[in-house]
Amino acid sequence: MMKRLVILGSTGSIGTSTLDLVTRFPDRFGVVGLGAGENLDLLVPQIERFRPALVAVRDDEIAARLAARLGRMARQVEIVRAAAGMCRLATMADADMVVSAVVGAVGLEPTYAALAAGKQVALANKESMVMAGRLLNETARAAGGVLLPLDSEHSAIWQSLHGERRSAVRRLTLTASGGPFYHLAVAELARVTPAEACRHPRWRMGQKISIDSATLMNKALEIIEACRLFEEDPERIAAVIHPQSIVHSLVEFCDGAVIAHLARPDMRLPIAYALHYPERMELPFPRLDLVREGPLEFIAVDPERFPAIGLAHRALALGDAGTIALNAANEVAVERFIAGRLPFPAITGVVAAALDRVAAADCDTIAEALEIDRRVRVDLEENPPLGNAY
Amino acid sequence: MMKRLVILGSTGSIGTSTLDLVTRFPDRFGVVGLGAGENLDLLVPQIERFRPALVAVRDDEIAARLAARLGRMARQVEIVRAAAGMCRLATMADADMVVSAVVGAVGLEPTYAALAAGKQVALANKESMVMAGRLLNETARAAGGVLLPLDSEHSAIWQSLHGERRSAVRRLTLTASGGPFYHLAVAELARVTPAEACRHPRWRMGQKISIDSATLMNKALEIIEACRLFEEDPERIAAVIHPQSIVHSLVEFCDGAVIAHLARPDMRLPIAYALHYPERMELPFPRLDLVREGPLEFIAVDPERFPAIGLAHRALALGDAGTIALNAANEVAVERFIAGRLPFPAITGVVAAALDRVAAADCDTIAEALEIDRRVRVDLEENPPLGNAY
Repeated sequence: MMKRLVILGSTGSIGTSTLDLVTRFPDRFGVVGLGAGENLDLLVPQIERFRPALVAVRDDEIAARLAARLGRMARQVEIVRAAAGMCRLATMADADMVVSAVVGAVGLEPTYAALAAGKQVALANKESMVMAGRLLNETARAAGGVLLPLDSEHSAIWQSLHGERRSAVRRLTLTASGGPFYHLAVAELARVTPAEACRHPRWRMGQKISIDSATLMNKALEIIEACRLFEEDPERIAAVIHPQSIVHSLVEFCDGAVIAHLARPDMRLPIAYALHYPERMELPFPRLDLVREGPLEFIAVDPERFPAIGLAHRALALGDAGTIALNAANEVAVERFIAGRLPFPAITGVVAAALDRVAAADCDTIAEALEIDRRVRVDLEENPPLGNAY
Repeated sequence: MMKRLVILGSTGSIGTSTLDLVTRFPDRFGVVGLGAGENLDLLVPQIERFRPALVAVRDDEIAARLAARLGRMARQVEIVRAAAGMCRLATMADADMVVSAVVGAVGLEPTYAALAAGKQVALANKESMVMAGRLLNETARAAGGVLLPLDSEHSAIWQSLHGERRSAVRRLTLTASGGPFYHLAVAELARVTPAEACRHPRWRMGQKISIDSATLMNKALEIIEACRLFEEDPERIAAVIHPQSIVHSLVEFCDGAVIAHLARPDMRLPIAYALHYPERMELPFPRLDLVREGPLEFIAVDPERFPAIGLAHRALALGDAGTIALNAANEVAVERFIAGRLPFPAITGVVAAALDRVAAADCDTIAEALEIDRRVRVDLEENPPLGNAY
């Protein structure tokens, strides 16, 4: 039976990888809806090829440009816009599964809407779990929706836990490539440029996520996401630097056994696992050859060079308010870093300042979560932290 | 509920590790029977401590010496002897599980007897699977017996397969430490002494198994065992050298994902897994620290230095007769090597010669298997292979 997909974030790296799988397995997957921001050069050919019934874009202006570029085909596609449009996409009656792969806090509302509508949601948008993981779990449970991880690390943990008793878990360890700077002296980090930060050694990704990977804030967000996704105690979740990015994560059990998931770094593998769950698909990609990959190294995270991991645990101790603040402050700081207005080490400095200012709290509604997110951003604007460095 | 154990081979490394677990978890495990060869210095204190009702030793002479050393306690223990004694032990009505951990072909009959009696058998005696794996599987299925692997590699595969669909398996890869000689030039292997061959870098084991580990015949036997235990095609089973012995084996699935089992090299872990299956036990041993272990290396098996792996696949193609011949010829050759009558590289040479002489056949009975084993040994005696080297 063909699975009908809605893809939120179809022009990003997860979105295009998902569509690559749809192209390879046309009997198994079809596309009923696509959501993107503004990258029409990618979106238009996607629409021409996959013929979705519904397409969402960022705003009226992009929608008008899209309609013009689609020409006569615009009649066969309904174009919607902004958050409301994304939510309509996420709840399409025709959809069997929603791939939630937009970047940033904007992913929260459509992810929530999809789960509340009882959809299977394959989740790459970590911000929604970071901002409202508890609420999303409850919503899914109540409405019959299901959350499936798409991130390679969370998929690795999910696969390693398969068939195991959750009470036997002693620790989940997320691996981090360490980004381009794990070998730099701490003093050198102050001179790092945005272009250098985006040069990720193993994965080709968007700008924001590449910088998050260089600060290890990406791993901090993933620790929080793992905590919510697997409903696990924060103190049982750790990170280790593994520059080869072959071991995607490890689960240690109470008897000392460690089950690990290894694969070539290719996002299509975890995506295919989620899309086709609970069956594994026969995939035609190159096989992992451990002899050729060379030695697998594991390096402890230096808390001085990478304060992000400690910040994740601080944020978790503050509840939803803490994890929302971490994410919002990081988004603000990364933007300033990209604009050349903040040195690299100050990114985590801004996050630490935001955590200092937030009061512990949990959220009962998406509106509350969005309000905390808004207040953190406004506060950083009105009361700049870090003195002259900001 | 306490699990009552019979331990065949209680004075060997698996036997003593099993008894260590019994000592640590007296509420979970008890001992009703012990079987050993002749090591009374170890067996007598084991009897004094665990008070088994039945004890088997090699022959009448050892039995008499044991009775004398037990003194008054001999009245509380029934002492039996030889193969028939081991089989009585293996089928004790009181036993919930039989740990089959003797070394060599003598393990076959009691393992068969235990499975035919419907027992759970935790198997470390690889020779029984190598000689009659197919028959043991059928016997277990017919009588309600169960085979649980104890070897770290097979336990690792078993754990990695947990909860997975068998049709999704693409390859099982057994790791081999490579023994002490994997870095030697092929020419140097001819000068290797028995003492050097027994100096295993990672595991402390008996003499026979240490030499098997140096020739990689141990891995050849394990490939055959895996083939029988998991009823998998020989061409789907591979070996790779991994000198750190941290990754105990790997399972590759059809989607390219590889699930691996890692642990500190400690036989008590796989033993505890089998004894307490399907639950994992909380074990108090040191935790695996990948940062401290250093890089994990994977090296292809050089077929010139290690002909054993190729011989395993040749033997499997010859059916039961091939795998029996491989095991028997290896036992004969290792004895001659220990006695200083055969150079190290000739061990696999003898095995290759035995395979040249055997006709493909499968066995329907244990008697047939034992007869092939006997004929191979007689033939090597009467028609020495390798000319003057033998």
